[in-house]
Amino acid sequence: MISWNKDLFEFKVVASDGNARAGILKTPHGEIETPVYMPVGTLGTVKAVTHREVEELGYKIILGNTYHLYLRPGLDVIKEAGGLHNFINWKKALLTDSGGFQVFSLARKKGQASVKITEEGVIFRDHLAGDLHLFTPEFVAYIEEVLGADIIMPLDVVVPYPTDYTTAAEALDRTIRWLERFIKARTRDDQALFGIVQGAFWKDLRRESALKTMEYDDYLFGYSIGGLSVGEDAQTMYEMTQEVTRLLPWNKPRYLMGVGKPENLVESVERGVDMFDCVFPTRVARTGTLYTTYGKVNIGNQKYRKDFSPPDPECDCYTCRNYTKAYLRHLFNVDEITAYILNTIHNLAFYKRLMEQMRKAIIEGRFQKWKAEFYEKYFSNQS
Amino acid sequence: MISWNKDLFEFKVVASDGNARAGILKTPHGEIETPVYMPVGTLGTVKAVTHREVEELGYKIILGNTYHLYLRPGLDVIKEAGGLHNFINWKKALLTDSGGFQVFSLARKKGQASVKITEEGVIFRDHLAGDLHLFTPEFVAYIEEVLGADIIMPLDVVVPYPTDYTTAAEALDRTIRWLERFIKARTRDDQALFGIVQGAFWKDLRRESALKTMEYDDYLFGYSIGGLSVGEDAQTMYEMTQEVTRLLPWNKPRYLMGVGKPENLVESVERGVDMFDCVFPTRVARTGTLYTTYGKVNIGNQKYRKDFSPPDPECDCYTCRNYTKAYLRHLFNVDEITAYILNTIHNLAFYKRLMEQMRKAIIEGRFQKWKAEFYEKYFSNQS
Repeated sequence: MISWNKDLFEFKVVASDGNARAGILKTPHGEIETPVYMPVGTLGTVKAVTHREVEELGYKIILGNTYHLYLRPGLDVIKEAGGLHNFINWKKALLTDSGGFQVFSLARKKGQASVKITEEGVIFRDHLAGDLHLFTPEFVAYIEEVLGADIIMPLDVVVPYPTDYTTAAEALDRTIRWLERFIKARTRDDQALFGIVQGAFWKDLRRESALKTMEYDDYLFGYSIGGLSVGEDAQTMYEMTQEVTRLLPWNKPRYLMGVGKPENLVESVERGVDMFDCVFPTRVARTGTLYTTYGKVNIGNQKYRKDFSPPDPECDCYTCRNYTKAYLRHLFNVDEITAYILNTIHNLAFYKRLMEQMRKAIIEGRFQKWKAEFYEKYFSNQS
Repeated sequence: MISWNKDLFEFKVVASDGNARAGILKTPHGEIETPVYMPVGTLGTVKAVTHREVEELGYKIILGNTYHLYLRPGLDVIKEAGGLHNFINWKKALLTDSGGFQVFSLARKKGQASVKITEEGVIFRDHLAGDLHLFTPEFVAYIEEVLGADIIMPLDVVVPYPTDYTTAAEALDRTIRWLERFIKARTRDDQALFGIVQGAFWKDLRRESALKTMEYDDYLFGYSIGGLSVGEDAQTMYEMTQEVTRLLPWNKPRYLMGVGKPENLVESVERGVDMFDCVFPTRVARTGTLYTTYGKVNIGNQKYRKDFSPPDPECDCYTCRNYTKAYLRHLFNVDEITAYILNTIHNLAFYKRLMEQMRKAIIEGRFQKWKAEFYEKYFSNQS
């Protein structure tokens, strides 16, 4: 059974403040300071910004989505290119998910009973041509090895929201059995695997999932918390997160999958999470929402028509240094692609700075003070 | 009657080869080497690329469209921002058209009889809400002064294609009368006005238009050739262009409006044109066409699925330095915004290099040789 090459990967908590941690995550494609937000590059690109811009914003790791890349451009293309790093020419670290979440969410959207789950794996119709596919833990391990990301996720069983206790408990157990099969199928030690903790919204299931996953600790470089931010209230999400992080080994990174809004990141870092990914900052940028120090700005708003101030007076990104709300409002209102570009650059800058500020506050032992100050400004003006 | 401030503007032909010329055009916002292609920033942005990218590609001047900017964001916004340079934060030179072409083409597209032309001006319904507007030479002079571009165009009468001799002759005369009214209405000498030569597809009308326009030479910093590339064959366009350029004063810049494809630029430079604008390179980039040294590449083509070579082996743009045809094909096929960005960067780089190569060839007295070599490669492989 494959573990990870200890020369290539390392995680170290360098400081903590309460449960919040600051760390360094070493990968074959560079070091990453945590807590970290990872931009989502679903199909091999962060939407609306070039790699150059992502790098200049200081990002050291982005995500690729296994489900999407498997469908398009297809495994044969990425294999022949020499893996995802080569295919997309991204020199820094990459993380791929297992496709599990997409299989259950996207495929389901078709409205048909298009997902059938057995012990063997999950049979689904894709959201494009509707072709049938079978994802087993072994096949996903193979796909992710072809993609070749630095950090990889095992195939897990995602339950719908809302769900019942029995379904969640069964999914949890199957996720563990699939984890073992995934580990056994691996052949590369230059990728580091995380275990995924499930258990829906029951604390006892979350505990059970965490402890059962930890039985494979020798083969797991880190731990993901899955199945959250799927429709439950934020308080429930925080409680489930805390129930899990308090059990997980201190010396390994924790990754809260698919989360979230700025305040979700703050609350989860406080509860001991190190890594995040979420499409929010890039997606809402394309619908005109800018995250700023003083709250959200809906840039299409008529009130910005002659507002010649930058979107965020405390931001030094390309967008805020160069453009006014009036200009960004105009670009957005006339559907210019540059509106999406400039908004995305800003939101990614905001998320990057948010994580950096948290890391600094943790290292300096003033996380609570920082949090209070951040919230005071951030919730002062939602427009 | 306002001319241009001789301290702020200057045009000098520094070399010529046959009728082809290399020049320097000085404006209050920097010097421009000619022949020059000017990217179109219709609504205050070149589509799909940030100003930074446009500047890094070496462009020193871009266009804004008076008709579009007048409608959105509206004159009051741009006036309060202190002009178009300030509003869009573009530090280099700007050129605005008169809106004439858009009034006749866009407004007409509604399918109604939505354009009514009188001696006073042109009454039209816009292509958005369908509101009624009146553009007179005086009002357009005012609009363009609010926009504040370095180089401005007078309101002209654009005839439909095809048209008849009488219509073209009458439009020509009215264009001259409107030119005089436009000149009389001007108040700023930090903008330089061009005259627009019309005359449709009759050489005698083109000659008549050129000579009548040249009667206002004291007030005209340069000469535009309008009404071409509207549906006629390329040969006709070249003949009309040549008929005009041979009459125009040698020491003033000639601008062929709305042209064109790479070969149109080559043929027109050969016939003495110095300035061009066209939406082609940016527009076709968004539909997947890349202009390359070896002809057009339709990047969505299945044959590029596993083509891991750059789009243009002789191009040093960000796109060609970093990405393969296979990756660009993938991005285009999955509708990623970055496909539009990367394709646009490349096409703008191609046009920039094309103009630079022509300028160098003119200066070195080998334009014909360069042209033959360019065509040999460019027409070797259209895919």
